[in-house]
Amino acid sequence: MSSSYTIALDVMGGDYGVPVVLPAARQALKGKGDFRLQLVGDQAVIEPELEDWNAAERERVEIVHASQVVGMEELPAVALRTKRDSSMRVAIDQVRKGEAQACVSAGNTGGLMATARYVLKTLPGIDRPAIATALPSMNAHTHMLDLGANVDVEAEHLYQFAVMGSVLAKAVDGLDSPRVGLLNIGSEAIKGNDRVREAGRMLEESSLNYVGFVEGNDVYCGDVDVVVCDGFVGNVALKTSEGVAKMITSNMKAEFRSSLYSRLAGLMALPVLRRLRQRFDHRRYNGASLLGLQGIVIKSHGSADSLAFANAIRIARIEAEANIATRIDKQLERLLRQETPE
Amino acid sequence: MSSSYTIALDVMGGDYGVPVVLPAARQALKGKGDFRLQLVGDQAVIEPELEDWNAAERERVEIVHASQVVGMEELPAVALRTKRDSSMRVAIDQVRKGEAQACVSAGNTGGLMATARYVLKTLPGIDRPAIATALPSMNAHTHMLDLGANVDVEAEHLYQFAVMGSVLAKAVDGLDSPRVGLLNIGSEAIKGNDRVREAGRMLEESSLNYVGFVEGNDVYCGDVDVVVCDGFVGNVALKTSEGVAKMITSNMKAEFRSSLYSRLAGLMALPVLRRLRQRFDHRRYNGASLLGLQGIVIKSHGSADSLAFANAIRIARIEAEANIATRIDKQLERLLRQETPE
Repeated sequence: MSSSYTIALDVMGGDYGVPVVLPAARQALKGKGDFRLQLVGDQAVIEPELEDWNAAERERVEIVHASQVVGMEELPAVALRTKRDSSMRVAIDQVRKGEAQACVSAGNTGGLMATARYVLKTLPGIDRPAIATALPSMNAHTHMLDLGANVDVEAEHLYQFAVMGSVLAKAVDGLDSPRVGLLNIGSEAIKGNDRVREAGRMLEESSLNYVGFVEGNDVYCGDVDVVVCDGFVGNVALKTSEGVAKMITSNMKAEFRSSLYSRLAGLMALPVLRRLRQRFDHRRYNGASLLGLQGIVIKSHGSADSLAFANAIRIARIEAEANIATRIDKQLERLLRQETPE
Repeated sequence: MSSSYTIALDVMGGDYGVPVVLPAARQALKGKGDFRLQLVGDQAVIEPELEDWNAAERERVEIVHASQVVGMEELPAVALRTKRDSSMRVAIDQVRKGEAQACVSAGNTGGLMATARYVLKTLPGIDRPAIATALPSMNAHTHMLDLGANVDVEAEHLYQFAVMGSVLAKAVDGLDSPRVGLLNIGSEAIKGNDRVREAGRMLEESSLNYVGFVEGNDVYCGDVDVVVCDGFVGNVALKTSEGVAKMITSNMKAEFRSSLYSRLAGLMALPVLRRLRQRFDHRRYNGASLLGLQGIVIKSHGSADSLAFANAIRIARIEAEANIATRIDKQLERLLRQETPE
C-alpha cells in the first residue's frame, strides 16, 4: 500500500458542516483508489453519525477530534488567535504533520487562507498564495487564478500565479504544455495597466507556454488552459459568470412555462435541457485550490451540498495523487528562482 | 418644430462603414419623433447610395462631407493629429457646433474617446469620461460603467462615475431614484481594495440612492440600476459575460442537434428559443454612452450590423431627447461641486 494517501476533511466547517460533509465523504469512498479519509471535528457529534456506515467504509475513515469551529463570518486574525483547536486548523495541521496529503474545508475563505499560510507556510519564491478553480469552456475547462485571495498585486505575483496555474493544469489535466493567458482588456485605447504589461514581458521570457493577453470571453472559448489575473478581477469575472448563467437559465425556465405550447415543448426538450444543466452544474466545479503553499488545501464553497463537497474531495484526491505542491515547488525552482532577475 | 433635433452619424467608421450605417439610418427614420440625421463621410460615396431612398427619407437626411477615415487600429494620438477631417471628428464637431445634438460612431474606441475629449471637453468636475452601457438583467436592465476608458482610477473617479450613471438611468429609464451599487468582491478575507472602500464612504455621504457594495452576479439580478467599477474590471466583466452566454448558447445548439429526438424537440422548442435569443441578442444592447463630455457621443460596436447600429442611433435619440449631457452637468453642480470636500 505504498501509493496510499489520506485526505483530511474539515467536517464542521461551512454553512452546514456534518450533514453535508459526512454524506460527501461516504460518496467519495465509493470512488476507486487506495485512500483514507480523516474526519476532523467534534468526535461526540461525528461518531454517532457513522453508526449506519458499513464496516468497509468505517475501516477507511478515522475521526480526528477538534473541539472548536471557525464561524463563517469570523475574522481571519481572530480565528487564527482564538481557534487553535478548530476543525479547520486541525485538518490543515494534519497536512503539515504528513498525516494527510491534502485537506478540504468549506470554512470561510479568509480564515482558511490565513490559517493555511500560517500553518503550512508558502513555498520558497511565492509571496502570496492564490485561489484557483476550473471553469467550463467550450470543449473542456479553463483554470483561472487568482479568484480573490490577492486584491492588489504586482507583476511578479501575476507571474507566480502563471507558474502555479501551469503546474496545476499539467497535473490535473495531464497536459504537456498548458497554454497560459494573461487576462487583459482589448480596448484599442489602452491595452491594460502597467502591472499586466510588465507581467506579460516576464512571461514572454519564461519557458511557460505563454500565449499572450486574453480577454474575458476567452476564459470560456477553450483556446487557453490557464487564465491569470488579480484576485479582484478574477472574483468579479467568476461572480459575473454565475450571474449570467443564472439569468439565462431563469429566463429559459420562465419561457418554457409561458404557455401550454411552451410547456409541451419544454417537456419534450427535457432530456436535452437536463444534459445542459448537468454540464453547467456549478456543483461539478466546486473545489478551489489554494496554491503556493507547502501542502494541498482545497476550499469548498460555504453553501456546497454533498454532491458539490464530494467534488471538492475529488479535486483533493487528484492533487494528492499528482503531488501538486511538490511539483509546483520543483517548477518554481526551475522557472522562478533561476530565471527571473531579482 | 421646436423640439426637433439632429443626430450626426459617422458613416465611414467601424469594420463596415457605409453598408451598415446607411441601412441603419434608413431603419431609424422609420421610428417616431421629429429628428433629422446627418450622414458624415465621403460625399462621393454616400450620395449614390441614397438614390433608392424615397423623398421623405431624403428630406430628413443631410450629407456632411468628411474626406478622411480613422482606421480601426489607428492610435488615438495619431488619429487626433493627422485625421482632422475624418468622418469621426467631423461628426463630433457637429455636436460641438450645436449642429447636431448627439453623434454615433462605430470607429475605434480609443480614437473616439480621445477625439471627443479633445473636441467637446469634459464637463466641469469630471476628470475622466467613462463608457457606460445597459446590460440585460432578470427583470429589466442594469447600466454599468466604466467599461474600459479608465484602467487605473481613484476613489473620486468612481464617485463621478456613480453620479453620471445615476443621471443616465434617470434619463433613459425614467427612474426617480436609481439604485447605485459599487462593484466589489465579497470574499470574507478582504472586502475590496482601498479605492473601492473610499468611494463607498463618499457615496454613503452623497444624496445618491447608494445601495452599497454589489458583487459580479448582482449586475444581472435586477436589484440594482447602476453598477460602478473601474474600466479594467468593467471590461473584463462585460467580455466574460459575453463568453458565458456564447458558450451556453453554443452548447444548447449542439445538444439540440445531438440526436434525431433532440432535433425534433428543438424544432418544437423553436418559438421559445427564438424569444430567448431575441431577449439576449447583444445587438439589442449595442450602443455605449461616452459620459462626462460636453455633448452626447454614442459608441457602436466596431463589428455591429445594421440592426445593432440602429439600436445605437436609438440610444443617441433617447439621450438627445433627455438632454443628458446638460442633466449630468446640473447633477454634478448639486452633488459634486458642492458636496464633496476638496
